[in-house]
Amino acid sequence: MRLSRFFLPVLRETPAEAQIVSHRLMLRAGMIKQNAAGIYSWLPLGFKVLRKIENIVHEEQARAGHIAMLMPTVQSADLWRESGRYDAYGDELLRIRDRHDRDMLYGPTNEEMITDIFRSHVGSYKDLPLTLYHIQWKFRDEMRPRFGVMRGREFFMKDGYNFDLSKEDALHAYNRHLVTYLRTYERMGLQAIPMRADSGPIGGDDTHEFLVLAETGESEVFYDSAVTDLTFGDREIDYDSVAQCAGVLEEFTSKYARTDETHDQTVFEQQVPQERRRTARGIEVGQIFYFGTKYSDAMGATVQGPDGKPTPVHMGSHGIGVSRLVGAIIEASHDDKGIIWPEGVTPFHCGIVNLKQGDAEADAACESLYAGLTALGLDPLYDDRDERAGGKFATMDLIGLPWRITVGPRGLKNGVVELTSRRTGESEEVPPEEAVKKIADIYRGHHASEHVPMMGNRSFHTYI
Amino acid sequence: MRLSRFFLPVLRETPAEAQIVSHRLMLRAGMIKQNAAGIYSWLPLGFKVLRKIENIVHEEQARAGHIAMLMPTVQSADLWRESGRYDAYGDELLRIRDRHDRDMLYGPTNEEMITDIFRSHVGSYKDLPLTLYHIQWKFRDEMRPRFGVMRGREFFMKDGYNFDLSKEDALHAYNRHLVTYLRTYERMGLQAIPMRADSGPIGGDDTHEFLVLAETGESEVFYDSAVTDLTFGDREIDYDSVAQCAGVLEEFTSKYARTDETHDQTVFEQQVPQERRRTARGIEVGQIFYFGTKYSDAMGATVQGPDGKPTPVHMGSHGIGVSRLVGAIIEASHDDKGIIWPEGVTPFHCGIVNLKQGDAEADAACESLYAGLTALGLDPLYDDRDERAGGKFATMDLIGLPWRITVGPRGLKNGVVELTSRRTGESEEVPPEEAVKKIADIYRGHHASEHVPMMGNRSFHTYI
Repeated sequence: MRLSRFFLPVLRETPAEAQIVSHRLMLRAGMIKQNAAGIYSWLPLGFKVLRKIENIVHEEQARAGHIAMLMPTVQSADLWRESGRYDAYGDELLRIRDRHDRDMLYGPTNEEMITDIFRSHVGSYKDLPLTLYHIQWKFRDEMRPRFGVMRGREFFMKDGYNFDLSKEDALHAYNRHLVTYLRTYERMGLQAIPMRADSGPIGGDDTHEFLVLAETGESEVFYDSAVTDLTFGDREIDYDSVAQCAGVLEEFTSKYARTDETHDQTVFEQQVPQERRRTARGIEVGQIFYFGTKYSDAMGATVQGPDGKPTPVHMGSHGIGVSRLVGAIIEASHDDKGIIWPEGVTPFHCGIVNLKQGDAEADAACESLYAGLTALGLDPLYDDRDERAGGKFATMDLIGLPWRITVGPRGLKNGVVELTSRRTGESEEVPPEEAVKKIADIYRGHHASEHVPMMGNRSFHTYI
Repeated sequence: MRLSRFFLPVLRETPAEAQIVSHRLMLRAGMIKQNAAGIYSWLPLGFKVLRKIENIVHEEQARAGHIAMLMPTVQSADLWRESGRYDAYGDELLRIRDRHDRDMLYGPTNEEMITDIFRSHVGSYKDLPLTLYHIQWKFRDEMRPRFGVMRGREFFMKDGYNFDLSKEDALHAYNRHLVTYLRTYERMGLQAIPMRADSGPIGGDDTHEFLVLAETGESEVFYDSAVTDLTFGDREIDYDSVAQCAGVLEEFTSKYARTDETHDQTVFEQQVPQERRRTARGIEVGQIFYFGTKYSDAMGATVQGPDGKPTPVHMGSHGIGVSRLVGAIIEASHDDKGIIWPEGVTPFHCGIVNLKQGDAEADAACESLYAGLTALGLDPLYDDRDERAGGKFATMDLIGLPWRITVGPRGLKNGVVELTSRRTGESEEVPPEEAVKKIADIYRGHHASEHVPMMGNRSFHTYI
């Protein structure tokens, strides 16, 4: 993309209304615009990041054999009356009355609807196990929406639901989701620590939240510093293997890590040596639940078991805050010049800065870099505007592309351009073709369509 | 995908409530489930088609240099009061009151919001031309929703908006959109004829609707049969070229083709030789508008012109009914056994039917076909259930995959499998590896990520 043809309305001033850094930077970098309290438009740069996160979530769900679908945003109130949540949910539920005076609502979550779909179509234990999920806009009518997309009213969320014949099977589904989430967050450049949590209005006993450590986090967290040494990495997992998934759960949750809701100081002190006890703040970016037969009992979602008798299914639900993640990643990865995107979610793979727009040689070198990168399937942002170098650098730093190629007449005389890392600030001078090669090498493995190998029986095409 | 792991709740009975064939077939093929009047869940098979259509629209918009973004579904009523449409829009506007008693609405379209974004961020003619678009859920509170996703209340739509300095520039944007739409529909296997139309509540003088001919169409249309001979094909277009885009408009709109809203029998008879006069029914799948300064005047969206004076921008809007297209494609492509998907939008590239599940040789041959196809990036649906051949064939015919490979012990003895076209019903016996190669050849050029070459300055990655 040429910047002259893109829509990137960066702001010089820091907007007064923004209290936290991700909100400030998203506004300044032209990623979002507020339309009403807690309701945002995703401007082109923001939308690209949102879509990349969405795609990573889809790919990792497909890898585990979970099936994508899409439920509507507007729901009938009747289903919520069946589960008892229509009255219980409170003022955060956005209630709507349609032209025929029917009670509707803008879904904040979909347990009722998916249970209704399940009971309408699935009758036998032979159709289990089944995990369905969708990524859809939700609405929660927060009393005081704040922190930009981190606590908006209209938000984009992945929510998945497993249906199993027994508690044992459902706990395998729980563990399998934990595995998919670990891999999902790592691909976004995030360390998200699973912590024992409280189940809140969803209900159920078993639940873990995934928290990203950040000063601006809304939760106080307590953990053994050894948990931050754990990485999932590129390991091969058979998602059908009960033992393998349970092993990952054990590895990632046996050390103490809890939010303030479930923190127990005595246990903390017993289990964790003093030098490894940490208190910090965390941003919740996901949560997994096992809630048994809570909804299937209330709504009559049974299957015929092997013994021929109707058996209520065991369920869980599993959420990732897709739009919230954009803010969380920025909270975890920025400096005073702006955002620093991890390679997995960056809106453009690199920037090209032409120090002397209009200079025939510099222009030609930039065009050639641009063509070379796009021919390899990469997506560079070429700042082809007639602006001072300082302004171009400031924009690139603000929007946070992880790599920048700087092209100027002086370097070109020596046959080189400058390749700069946004994260370290380090630069090296290399011939243009080597810069292209280096960028391509960096992103090998981060390319959506290349990153997901066929896992056994499942292809990554499955979700589209 | 193995069918035993997929969620495909096909119905044996034809649902009584469905009046038209696409609605019946979408319900029977397990593509959708109604949640409330005119509100549907997209079950996995339906979601895959919806997503493929969405991706084609994104790719063709990116090819023309249009910039993707995303506006929210819930809007503040204030903007609609500014344009005067809050009262004018009538009962189809779903009005919402939030917990603080503020008037909101579920957007049926986004002219006001995009104009607000534009006026907030764009100040100079130097930032023009600009075309922004999004693909988002909309709501229209229809009095009598019907025909399934063809006339639902919650629907998925692409709407794009161009901002230009002059009427002349805006008409180029109009023509450019016409070009992108022709290519978009053809990639979905549809012939959508641009017809002169009425502008309705959007306003403006210049507008064309794109209509797919089908018996169940809601509009009566009148056209010169010569328009159905026109195809856009694979031609190279420079989207910046005013002459080239105008040439396409001329080619595709100079022959008589109008909906009943603008039909003029006298002109029809004057312009079209009797043997080429056709009357038929059509389904509207898109519309493009030039409406000049209607919204920019009302909402003060001006830029500083080259003369330093504030100039209201010339605008147009351009819509494609993404969810409606799923129904329209089925209306245009089915037989009495079920759906017949065009290759560009098929949910799976082919089906694999194992005639004797459990037979070691047949199972191994199916596994090998499955692995061979997925290794090439294809997405087959393998019916691995323990069912009779007749039931498997009926399911494949119903869900409409364009190609089927049938594997049975008898053929395998001769080293062959059967490759069948859903459209023609013709079969040929070929060795398994040749079946894989043939399927791959058919889809070369239909693969999303391969189909869009880099067009000059723009890469297809741009939209994600």
